[in-house]
Amino acid sequence: MRVSYQELSETLRRALLTTGLEPDRAALCARLIADSTCDGVPSHGLNLFPRLMTMIRTGVVDAAARAARVSVSGAVERWDGRGGVGALNAYEAMDAAIERSREHRIGCVALANTNHWMRGGTYGWQAAGRGAIAICWTNTLPNLPPWGADAPRIGNNPLVIAVPRASGHVVLDMAMSQFSYGALAAYRSRGEPLPVPGGFDSTGQLTRDPAAIEASGRPLPIGFWKGSGLSIMLDTIAAVLSGGRATHQIAARPEEETGVSQVFVAIDVASLADRDEVTRVADAILADLHVRYPGQRTVETRARNLAEGIPVDPSAWQFARTCAAAQ
Amino acid sequence: MRVSYQELSETLRRALLTTGLEPDRAALCARLIADSTCDGVPSHGLNLFPRLMTMIRTGVVDAAARAARVSVSGAVERWDGRGGVGALNAYEAMDAAIERSREHRIGCVALANTNHWMRGGTYGWQAAGRGAIAICWTNTLPNLPPWGADAPRIGNNPLVIAVPRASGHVVLDMAMSQFSYGALAAYRSRGEPLPVPGGFDSTGQLTRDPAAIEASGRPLPIGFWKGSGLSIMLDTIAAVLSGGRATHQIAARPEEETGVSQVFVAIDVASLADRDEVTRVADAILADLHVRYPGQRTVETRARNLAEGIPVDPSAWQFARTCAAAQ
Repeated sequence: MRVSYQELSETLRRALLTTGLEPDRAALCARLIADSTCDGVPSHGLNLFPRLMTMIRTGVVDAAARAARVSVSGAVERWDGRGGVGALNAYEAMDAAIERSREHRIGCVALANTNHWMRGGTYGWQAAGRGAIAICWTNTLPNLPPWGADAPRIGNNPLVIAVPRASGHVVLDMAMSQFSYGALAAYRSRGEPLPVPGGFDSTGQLTRDPAAIEASGRPLPIGFWKGSGLSIMLDTIAAVLSGGRATHQIAARPEEETGVSQVFVAIDVASLADRDEVTRVADAILADLHVRYPGQRTVETRARNLAEGIPVDPSAWQFARTCAAAQ
Repeated sequence: MRVSYQELSETLRRALLTTGLEPDRAALCARLIADSTCDGVPSHGLNLFPRLMTMIRTGVVDAAARAARVSVSGAVERWDGRGGVGALNAYEAMDAAIERSREHRIGCVALANTNHWMRGGTYGWQAAGRGAIAICWTNTLPNLPPWGADAPRIGNNPLVIAVPRASGHVVLDMAMSQFSYGALAAYRSRGEPLPVPGGFDSTGQLTRDPAAIEASGRPLPIGFWKGSGLSIMLDTIAAVLSGGRATHQIAARPEEETGVSQVFVAIDVASLADRDEVTRVADAILADLHVRYPGQRTVETRARNLAEGIPVDPSAWQFARTCAAAQ
């Protein structure tokens, strides 16, 4: 089933208005969710929308709260997300980091007490669209065993890196787990093995069987001990810089996950090299790869979905339509 | 075979003096190499020393060159390494990033035209020792096939992240390859399989056989497609920010690898949280892991080696002694 971008974003906007979000913020949030879905990441777009609405209704997410700047020191700001809508808080924080980078050439915003940012790549595309390099990440609830342990004590802590390029921004959006639980479920429901080992089974053997990993609760960090270490570093920096919670302080149930910490770094690359030069350098690197570059598929998917309509999950789409009709 | 820290660093210092390095720079370079060896990373310390000396003698590395600041714009500096000794250039660049961060709370130095920085972790320990968070990386020669390709087109581009902590800094130092060629050779010579799959054999199957990966030339990026993407992003940012070379422009033979690009970011965390607070937050995170944290083994190894002497590879040690005797 496919719907137009206009219909998707308008439906989401009307649904969000029912939560008490201010009109301009409902429109922005709807656009961010529609963009993620259009870009081929419905898992972090429309398909997360029911959970967002539930978390607003249960009071875990406060739709009326707005993030506030707590301190400014040079090129570094601290923000308090005040438990508001994660995607809006993250968008505003990246916006502030970009503004800092206009003045100092590099800017950093650390955001405490926020909620799930939905698609992390959103904030990379946001920065690249304004000509900035972005490096940003979030911590999460404990959903991954660190290397050497069998219980989930670290987060999958998505990391986003973006470089602007006239011929298509280069945007990497990757979690520290090799496969998300959502991806494991998708492989299982299709009856397919994972393309590479994705975790341990309950006997402690590496496996490509998604169901065995769901059963053991032991998905793999990327690069085994390496991604485990990287997750720990990202969590530590996010908690230290923001003054907010670390993964071990975040509720372990997804529908109760709140108070996460995030870091947004923007670099005003235009001050170092003109836009043509950045594009020329990036083009040469990507042309030499002979494989897809990070973000390439997104650009292709976006163009196709804008032309042909955006594939939507029937039940998530029905949920959004029902919410919108209740306005 | 074990030697004292004093004997190791003094021997390296005298050996380096024969290259025409200025006395203070020879002493610093000797200390950095001795530290890496003492910290349990001889592969990037003493064992790389013969290659450094060879590269100086063949003129690939210019021992007389000093890195120069090319531009300063806000909190971002561009440096030209002028083909000098990589470890000294990197140390100086991180020092400049820390200085920038004193003024702007975050600082960034992009270094072009430099050489192998030896142990990347060195610059993380350097920053943490001065109370700063560090994020730094280097590009390298093409030594890793990107995901989806079978020829080496990306670098293993080591990434270092450090957080200062009174009870022991937290320092991650990881390349984008799951195992280095040096590690593959070590497993092979011990007759051991890799602990996890490390690459493809020549039939395209994932394998734990180190010799099969050496034969195919297809080691794995960490996290398969994920580390491949991260390597591409690190290379692109390093080349764009520094104005220097990207991996595809760097000679593919290790003994000719020169003109690499690096990025050093320092964050003056002391301006956001006092040192006790940073330590308290990090302590709580690390205590919850129930496994080793990044850098923990380094601290333990350093203490043991300072007490018992530093294990040295006999042939690399003999090489250093011979160089020093030629003074």
